[in-house]
Amino acid sequence: MHSKKRAKIINDPIYGFIEIESGIINSLINHPYFQRLRRISQLGLSYLVYPGAQHTRFQHALGCLHLVSKATQQLLKKGHKINQEEQEAVKIAILLHDIGHGPFSHALERTLVANISHEELSLIYMHKLNEEFNGKLSLAIKIFKNKYKKQFLHQLVSSQLDMDRLDYLKRDSFFTGVTEGNVGVERIISMLDVQNDNLVIEEKGIYSIEKFIIARRLMYWQVYLHKTVISAENMLIQLLMRAKYLVRNSKNIYISSNLKKFLFNDIKLNDFKEDNKLLNNFSQLDDSEIYSGLKYWSQNEDFVLSKLSNDILNRNILKIKVQKNIFNKKHIKLCIKKMINKEKISKEEAEYFIFSDKVSNSLYSIGNSNINILFKNGEIKDLSKSSDQFNLVALSKTINKYFLCSPKEYIVN
Amino acid sequence: MHSKKRAKIINDPIYGFIEIESGIINSLINHPYFQRLRRISQLGLSYLVYPGAQHTRFQHALGCLHLVSKATQQLLKKGHKINQEEQEAVKIAILLHDIGHGPFSHALERTLVANISHEELSLIYMHKLNEEFNGKLSLAIKIFKNKYKKQFLHQLVSSQLDMDRLDYLKRDSFFTGVTEGNVGVERIISMLDVQNDNLVIEEKGIYSIEKFIIARRLMYWQVYLHKTVISAENMLIQLLMRAKYLVRNSKNIYISSNLKKFLFNDIKLNDFKEDNKLLNNFSQLDDSEIYSGLKYWSQNEDFVLSKLSNDILNRNILKIKVQKNIFNKKHIKLCIKKMINKEKISKEEAEYFIFSDKVSNSLYSIGNSNINILFKNGEIKDLSKSSDQFNLVALSKTINKYFLCSPKEYIVN
Amino acid sequence: MHSKKRAKIINDPIYGFIEIESGIINSLINHPYFQRLRRISQLGLSYLVYPGAQHTRFQHALGCLHLVSKATQQLLKKGHKINQEEQEAVKIAILLHDIGHGPFSHALERTLVANISHEELSLIYMHKLNEEFNGKLSLAIKIFKNKYKKQFLHQLVSSQLDMDRLDYLKRDSFFTGVTEGNVGVERIISMLDVQNDNLVIEEKGIYSIEKFIIARRLMYWQVYLHKTVISAENMLIQLLMRAKYLVRNSKNIYISSNLKKFLFNDIKLNDFKEDNKLLNNFSQLDDSEIYSGLKYWSQNEDFVLSKLSNDILNRNILKIKVQKNIFNKKHIKLCIKKMINKEKISKEEAEYFIFSDKVSNSLYSIGNSNINILFKNGEIKDLSKSSDQFNLVALSKTINKYFLCSPKEYIVN
Amino acid sequence: MHSKKRAKIINDPIYGFIEIESGIINSLINHPYFQRLRRISQLGLSYLVYPGAQHTRFQHALGCLHLVSKATQQLLKKGHKINQEEQEAVKIAILLHDIGHGPFSHALERTLVANISHEELSLIYMHKLNEEFNGKLSLAIKIFKNKYKKQFLHQLVSSQLDMDRLDYLKRDSFFTGVTEGNVGVERIISMLDVQNDNLVIEEKGIYSIEKFIIARRLMYWQVYLHKTVISAENMLIQLLMRAKYLVRNSKNIYISSNLKKFLFNDIKLNDFKEDNKLLNNFSQLDDSEIYSGLKYWSQNEDFVLSKLSNDILNRNILKIKVQKNIFNKKHIKLCIKKMINKEKISKEEAEYFIFSDKVSNSLYSIGNSNINILFKNGEIKDLSKSSDQFNLVALSKTINKYFLCSPKEYIVN
Repeated sequence: MHSKKRAKIINDPIYGFIEIESGIINSLINHPYFQRLRRISQLGLSYLVYPGAQHTRFQHALGCLHLVSKATQQLLKKGHKINQEEQEAVKIAILLHDIGHGPFSHALERTLVANISHEELSLIYMHKLNEEFNGKLSLAIKIFKNKYKKQFLHQLVSSQLDMDRLDYLKRDSFFTGVTEGNVGVERIISMLDVQNDNLVIEEKGIYSIEKFIIARRLMYWQVYLHKTVISAENMLIQLLMRAKYLVRNSKNIYISSNLKKFLFNDIKLNDFKEDNKLLNNFSQLDDSEIYSGLKYWSQNEDFVLSKLSNDILNRNILKIKVQKNIFNKKHIKLCIKKMINKEKISKEEAEYFIFSDKVSNSLYSIGNSNINILFKNGEIKDLSKSSDQFNLVALSKTINKYFLCSPKEYIVN
Repeated sequence: MHSKKRAKIINDPIYGFIEIESGIINSLINHPYFQRLRRISQLGLSYLVYPGAQHTRFQHALGCLHLVSKATQQLLKKGHKINQEEQEAVKIAILLHDIGHGPFSHALERTLVANISHEELSLIYMHKLNEEFNGKLSLAIKIFKNKYKKQFLHQLVSSQLDMDRLDYLKRDSFFTGVTEGNVGVERIISMLDVQNDNLVIEEKGIYSIEKFIIARRLMYWQVYLHKTVISAENMLIQLLMRAKYLVRNSKNIYISSNLKKFLFNDIKLNDFKEDNKLLNNFSQLDDSEIYSGLKYWSQNEDFVLSKLSNDILNRNILKIKVQKNIFNKKHIKLCIKKMINKEKISKEEAEYFIFSDKVSNSLYSIGNSNINILFKNGEIKDLSKSSDQFNLVALSKTINKYFLCSPKEYIVN
Repeated sequence: MHSKKRAKIINDPIYGFIEIESGIINSLINHPYFQRLRRISQLGLSYLVYPGAQHTRFQHALGCLHLVSKATQQLLKKGHKINQEEQEAVKIAILLHDIGHGPFSHALERTLVANISHEELSLIYMHKLNEEFNGKLSLAIKIFKNKYKKQFLHQLVSSQLDMDRLDYLKRDSFFTGVTEGNVGVERIISMLDVQNDNLVIEEKGIYSIEKFIIARRLMYWQVYLHKTVISAENMLIQLLMRAKYLVRNSKNIYISSNLKKFLFNDIKLNDFKEDNKLLNNFSQLDDSEIYSGLKYWSQNEDFVLSKLSNDILNRNILKIKVQKNIFNKKHIKLCIKKMINKEKISKEEAEYFIFSDKVSNSLYSIGNSNINILFKNGEIKDLSKSSDQFNLVALSKTINKYFLCSPKEYIVN
Repeated sequence: MHSKKRAKIINDPIYGFIEIESGIINSLINHPYFQRLRRISQLGLSYLVYPGAQHTRFQHALGCLHLVSKATQQLLKKGHKINQEEQEAVKIAILLHDIGHGPFSHALERTLVANISHEELSLIYMHKLNEEFNGKLSLAIKIFKNKYKKQFLHQLVSSQLDMDRLDYLKRDSFFTGVTEGNVGVERIISMLDVQNDNLVIEEKGIYSIEKFIIARRLMYWQVYLHKTVISAENMLIQLLMRAKYLVRNSKNIYISSNLKKFLFNDIKLNDFKEDNKLLNNFSQLDDSEIYSGLKYWSQNEDFVLSKLSNDILNRNILKIKVQKNIFNKKHIKLCIKKMINKEKISKEEAEYFIFSDKVSNSLYSIGNSNINILFKNGEIKDLSKSSDQFNLVALSKTINKYFLCSPKEYIVN
């Protein structure tokens, strides 16, 4: 008796073992574009609040792959038809769904490539890889773009109950140690079904879904939008804005050639299509690029650049106030004035340290890739109309919180 | 250097180690009244659905003890004054808060001692033990009855956020394997504070509390009121009612003398106070008493008694239908008629197998030992008025579900 | 698209979900013989030391079923051939491997049915069920008895690395809270392979196996042979011996007819074959039978019977001393004498309370259903010859510990 | 009633919450020297095998702090005297015990500062911080150097059973997902005691200690010395050696000024004492420094530098063979020759890719800060003489494994 060549098995602290099939899946993981995700943290600067949150995009992508495998197995068991090619394609689609992320994931998304979402960049990567792999990603791209006839496959990759969300909530909860964000992934997947080409959840799973939504709410306000994290990530954005300003004004500032490309120019989606090398430049950017920058810049003569760099490196985070209403502009001006007087800097410089903005979150979007509940009598209803008690209309409301960041000593009460 | 005499340490699969102080706490645990809790399961017949749910009242009581210790330590750290005597008393109060439970906990509460709640019985036990221990439980009893000046101590033992609930949700979730019912006990306790003699939760704990309430909702409908569990527990109640009927009508039925006392007579609270031996009779009742009964009764000539006994023992659970509205009486009559015709039994007998009732649950009671949130500005608000998004008014609504049990073959559609 | 009829899914606190196939497996689980295992604890009286250890034979049997499924899936992936019928048979074999256990599992094995092992009884059950299920268990029985050509299937059920051990170590560790007994079940199963019809472990799994053996050693001395557990279980055995003596000497003692059958007579294996009802009598015995006995007997006039019953019920466990060498007989006699004088009882009576015996454990049996390591070069070696450092010859030595039990006050120093 | 100022609480995925006292402990954690540990991974390149292993020295140091707190609380409960100042000092000592680690922890220890151990560097940091904090670290330094009269405090920080080992085994096991390396930390700490100024373990903890040692063995060979990790880390060392060579030979190579200091010069311990700025240069080095280097160097014209950089970045790890005996030199020469011929490079260049060395590990060192067992009769014995079965003499043997790394295509068989 002879053993077949085995799939690779990777240890994952959450799921135990993740199987990697040999073939295209394995090749994609080994590709430098994908290996780069090992150097991009999943949660940006959240580790300044939750030291355990050092996990990477690489781990998350493998986790998604694992969950999609489980989900398709589940659907197959329930009698749905997903052929080998489709199974592979949906795995590829979710494996690469976040490959377009730059350093610090969301934090710098609007700074380095101001008008391009990471999903658009992921798609550019997929097309590039599709060329390299002779069209083997075509079906995956179709699914990713929701152009494939079986739309439930797209919903596994992207919807309000996709495998992406399940993995990141579980994973972020695990690594931050915020155990309350834990989600009953195994149970939810066991309740998945398909009706009229739509992913649905069996009726008895409704409590699990409610809990998933509450866990998500908790993770948003307690982790992703934790006020210290907001402050730190905005400091990093301000810092990059300053670096951009200095670079564009020919000031003396150390900067790697790859990073310079994205700070000196306003890169547009089309540029990636026209300039073949641009994607490689982008691929060189990772978290370490920024940390090296921080260390160089902390020695720079520019007050703003050096102070912000030092403060991020050493975790001197700006004081942040959060409230339901917009901050009074006069109030902010007073703070800025105080800083100008004390530090002998310009208004423009002070505004890098004192600024206000808002963060928003909505727990559930009615009518937008929504969650469908399949009742025993065959009826399908939107989640927001399914619960006997859990008021989802209230949850679908968008919550805005306004924040004001400033050095502690310049806050005016 | 000489080691002090150590407290006892007990392994607990949930908290790791539970410390038992020597002295009165240890003596109470060693008392036969308390040891008896080792033979009373926490979740009655739920193990027929969740095989892991074999944990006992004994474990739960120790878990509560552990959490109260943690909570008082936390409050002490925050500067609140709880002297040694009070610390011991609140531990005793929670240790004994459930000591009045009879076999199968809640399931038989209204069958064996029809008009006495387990809390009233717990109090009778406490008074009895207070005599034995020369008044050392007096303060604990005061706290249990909320007659003590520091009412936050009572709230640790009994309120909508007491240590009892925290432990049973966590414990029941753990042993059933319904991981979604897990509650962030450690975090919630770390947010406890006291204001104006009321237990409060710090503002930033609000998401944890929301999740605690949703976890509770999930556990109610998925475990405690799981439809198969409802059916099984109602079968057991019907069986005991039948045994009671047969005993009172001098039918030939094996029954232990201890159990007979509670089936033959209508025991009232006063009886326990007047008849000194009655508490000892009650203390002899435990789950094994019922199982032995089931095995004897399964051989009895009475059709109802033997069939119900056999069916519970071998997990032939009555079919159960659950709906939002009350079941039509005519419909139920039809089912009963069908059974009468087929089995050649009387209407009274058939009604032991075909019956309807309702179960209710409310997630949060506004204004009743409610949960208070302490805001950073010092303000205190009821939880239902504290959340920006989570509609607790909706959750405070009482949900009723009606059920109909019947042998599968007699259900009329 | 239509969903296929699904297998049943059962929550397990350890593995999450356990799938039960419809068909014979499901029918066997629903059989009264198997349901009875819900009322037989896995670890006897260990819960007197580890309150969490209330789990049952039922849970363990399902756990074994789960692991065998995983293991066969693993072997199939590695290219080994196990057809549908064999897969089902090996599942049946492990599901029923412990069905012959009586109340308190091992504790009473040698008391109720003195000369019959639980394996022999399991086989009797299997044959009986095979009749009921028209020969559908024949292959399972062959595998269980190691009469089937593919002996690696038997090794999954019974060997030094069978799925039984993996499950009970993991499960007992989980419920006792002795986390150090936890075993890397998933990893070990992923390293299983078959060579020359023998179950083997891949070379790189050697550290996991070493750890499995050490975990087993820890569980033996810390849980299974914990000195308080030894004392309690021997008290129970003494009690049953006393009950047997009284029954056989026509003393006034309450006893159920089922239990009486096994105490009054010396049942032999053949009796089960000849007396068709005997197996049903045995099937009525469960833990609750013994607890009911304890409660009745605690009121009996016989000093030995009532004292031992009371002491077990209320956890007054005999003092136990453990040492490497056999206890001096004169010393034991002195203790007994002291008790006789004080309690005014006979020597025979005193010997129910003061007794000595030994417990033994060997970690690894060389040459007996041993563990084989498959090296990369294709070589296979016994585990004891495979480790570079871990001295398994030392571990294969049988460790004996002698114990002496006695009421505390009669121990002579 | 007024709340006391609380210490900070930090979420840790392993222990739940870690309390940070305000005062010197908190100030040290906020110091840039310590914050730098957030950018130094605990396990170097192990994440190439175990993607979860992204945890940092920062987390480990906090974990150690937590365990030392628990351990001192335990010893206080057992009646040992450790005053406030000593408690703080032992916490400081363990908090800073690893502060001298450079990028990639152990991997580059012998490359950047060839003749200085990280413990020596930690001490330099401590002295520097002691100056800054006006002597408040003096007692901590004494304990760290084992110059303080109560040597058991030193043993908590550094011995064969120190809190450092307990935390790193538990933590590395957790993040790699190699659950078998998990250690019963809570239980071991509960068994700690002190006798004759030595840390001892109570007799009944002996099985836990055996398991701790086996878990350590497993972690060494399965994680720390996993063959792919050895290969990757040696590639990194070779790369740094090449960079050093190029820098010293004035080749064109990008290098940051901080890194240059350590590659261009042979830094000795004394240099840190004489050159006040050197420690600050060293403090600028972190993992991102090396990653930035890798990206620059991957574009360098030097074949060795660019190939090794690219291969590490993209996880093209050299093939590695491991065996018990030293590799034949002629054999290695043949491989090198093959590479020279094929790649048209020099022997010196080829030797950066093809090299052999050994790794060693000993599980237990007899007589060197050994583990003492305290028996019930008051006797103390070395662990290696305490076990009835577990052959620790065998375990104290040093195991050597020889390895040979080479590009796959140049391996000669």
